[in-house]
Amino acid sequence: MRLSPAHYAGVHASLRRALDEDGLDGFLATAPADVAYLAGFFYAVTERPVYLWFPREGRPVCLVPQHDDEYARLQRIEADLATYAEYPGVDPAERVLARLIAGAGRSAARIGVSGGLTLAALGLLTAALPGSTFETSTAVSRLRVVKRPEELERHREAAAICDEMLAAGRALIEDALRSGGPLPSEGDLARHVIGHGTDAMYQRYDHVIYTTKLAGGLVYAGPNSAHPHGLPSRRRLEPGDTVILSLGAAVGSRFVESERTFVIDEPSADQRRYFAAAAQAQEVGTAGLRAGRSCAEVNRECLDVIRGHGLGAYLRHRQGHGIGVQNHEPPWVEDGDDTVIGAGMVLSSEPGVYVPGHGGYRISDTVLITEDGPERLTHYPRALEENVIAP
Amino acid sequence: MRLSPAHYAGVHASLRRALDEDGLDGFLATAPADVAYLAGFFYAVTERPVYLWFPREGRPVCLVPQHDDEYARLQRIEADLATYAEYPGVDPAERVLARLIAGAGRSAARIGVSGGLTLAALGLLTAALPGSTFETSTAVSRLRVVKRPEELERHREAAAICDEMLAAGRALIEDALRSGGPLPSEGDLARHVIGHGTDAMYQRYDHVIYTTKLAGGLVYAGPNSAHPHGLPSRRRLEPGDTVILSLGAAVGSRFVESERTFVIDEPSADQRRYFAAAAQAQEVGTAGLRAGRSCAEVNRECLDVIRGHGLGAYLRHRQGHGIGVQNHEPPWVEDGDDTVIGAGMVLSSEPGVYVPGHGGYRISDTVLITEDGPERLTHYPRALEENVIAP
Repeated sequence: MRLSPAHYAGVHASLRRALDEDGLDGFLATAPADVAYLAGFFYAVTERPVYLWFPREGRPVCLVPQHDDEYARLQRIEADLATYAEYPGVDPAERVLARLIAGAGRSAARIGVSGGLTLAALGLLTAALPGSTFETSTAVSRLRVVKRPEELERHREAAAICDEMLAAGRALIEDALRSGGPLPSEGDLARHVIGHGTDAMYQRYDHVIYTTKLAGGLVYAGPNSAHPHGLPSRRRLEPGDTVILSLGAAVGSRFVESERTFVIDEPSADQRRYFAAAAQAQEVGTAGLRAGRSCAEVNRECLDVIRGHGLGAYLRHRQGHGIGVQNHEPPWVEDGDDTVIGAGMVLSSEPGVYVPGHGGYRISDTVLITEDGPERLTHYPRALEENVIAP
Repeated sequence: MRLSPAHYAGVHASLRRALDEDGLDGFLATAPADVAYLAGFFYAVTERPVYLWFPREGRPVCLVPQHDDEYARLQRIEADLATYAEYPGVDPAERVLARLIAGAGRSAARIGVSGGLTLAALGLLTAALPGSTFETSTAVSRLRVVKRPEELERHREAAAICDEMLAAGRALIEDALRSGGPLPSEGDLARHVIGHGTDAMYQRYDHVIYTTKLAGGLVYAGPNSAHPHGLPSRRRLEPGDTVILSLGAAVGSRFVESERTFVIDEPSADQRRYFAAAAQAQEVGTAGLRAGRSCAEVNRECLDVIRGHGLGAYLRHRQGHGIGVQNHEPPWVEDGDDTVIGAGMVLSSEPGVYVPGHGGYRISDTVLITEDGPERLTHYPRALEENVIAP
């Protein structure tokens, strides 16, 4: 799962250019995803801060709690390593960081930070580094938007695992129907598909690392599927249900999501109608994800398909979002985000139709934008006739 | 899993008093754990903000993305409900919030927020609410430190599940030893115990809700167990290994953790020595968790036991931390936290000894502080002779 030193060297060179553009003396990464992206350090996130100081000149240094020292060495992170004792401790992380920055002897008057920095952390940093100002900067988030070749390899591997998770979920329902036994509950199904994805990771990779998760998913059926982000319940699936398997997987913390809508047994006229609208919107929206267009414009075109079917009241969310080291990240394929789509971006395309009391319909692919247009990384069949589950 | 309206009424009355003490016109909760604590709304966290406005007088209102509208209704949250369309959107959440606050017609000049608010969110809020100042406040975190009776019921139920997860993990190893088959890998073991805990939740509760997870854990053996927060690997367990099962579970998002150290086959003299030091420190540290003492003082006494065994070089972390709606929360049983321990607090007690290249030794209980002293909520056997796993 580890990315090569050459990959990180490229990232670091790009960040130095971004710091020059912004007139910053360095960037202080505090978000776990930024630390993973810049230095290849993946860790269990707690209240104990991890600070990655990336100066405009010289080696970056990653300050970790002492309890992660050996673990960071094992990961051969792409930065010098320093430790502080514990949180909150008598020699807090921010004071140790201030000494590290001062010891390097270069200017740190203007320090870039992400908008995700908390007020509490800013207070501690300002007290420890009175000669520095902290400015929110997009230096790192600008880089993360366009994926590099080694990242794309991992997105593709994650996509394959995600497709296999969908197949495993479908098989569990199908087998239960065939055997005449009780159908699985949403919770059973969630555990089964997540377990399948997790097992695949451990079978394929020697050193498993991640930021938030290896494999995950929302699984809901019947009325519960009308809640786009509802949690799986213990309700058993029933013939006639609409079922959404909304699954995600990450290899080296490069995420994909793949979501499909299934119907158990012969679909009703309503199910056909809702499914057709969601599927057509996903086709139109995905085809629209081309370099040079704006996110807001593609989103509007995509959701207009659902409105055109007279189902605008059943919209609950935008077309999609960026996906990378985090499962949701900029840009947002939505009103209000005028980001121009460019080659190398990876975006989800997942318009949905949600009918309260009845169910939800959503198909999501993870899509790489190439010079030649959109390329779906997830390949599981999408059509209704292929996703009817019958004995 | 749902807490009663009477429980929330008590929380709300206490928060009103805290706002009076701090001279605040209201509190704007933005952290998922604070929203869950104050209003009983549990949701999948994304970039879409959820804002809970809790005015000093009048009903609280919870602003959620439209896609969570039905889901919040289903949870019968303890606040009025309002929605915004989408993130980022053309009518962003912060502007909708400003209209809600203005519409209530009461002063909102001084608004309390938690230290976890991000710089990005503060910027948006300041622009949308130019007449308000935002002040970091401990009004909510002060309340969360002392657990209420309905919370303690859920902590106890979670503790029972956690103990069962430990038993399930031990049984998996024992069965493999008896059958002469290969031992499970760390990854297999992690999946097995987390699945066991998750199944127990779905079997016992009709409506499953959580903030970050239902059941989770770190599982490591042999040299990997020397990394306190390492991830499970695909390495198979071996006779002679030290094994840490570091497990957690949450009922109604009230967390516990329970961690035990096992040895596969006859322990060596070194294993006995390290285990004895960790176990004795945990006994002393746990007995020290009494109302009226300071967190820093108890931590020092606890870790001094390990130092007294000549193993100070193998310390990697503090004695413990608070636990509640989050699996780690204040106070910190550590140097630098002079919080006075009081009845109703729930704390972890988990000193550890980590020998690089060899393994780790940690026993953790979740401990309720009562007027009469510490009460362990987790009961799985702790002694080495009970935790030797042999065929």
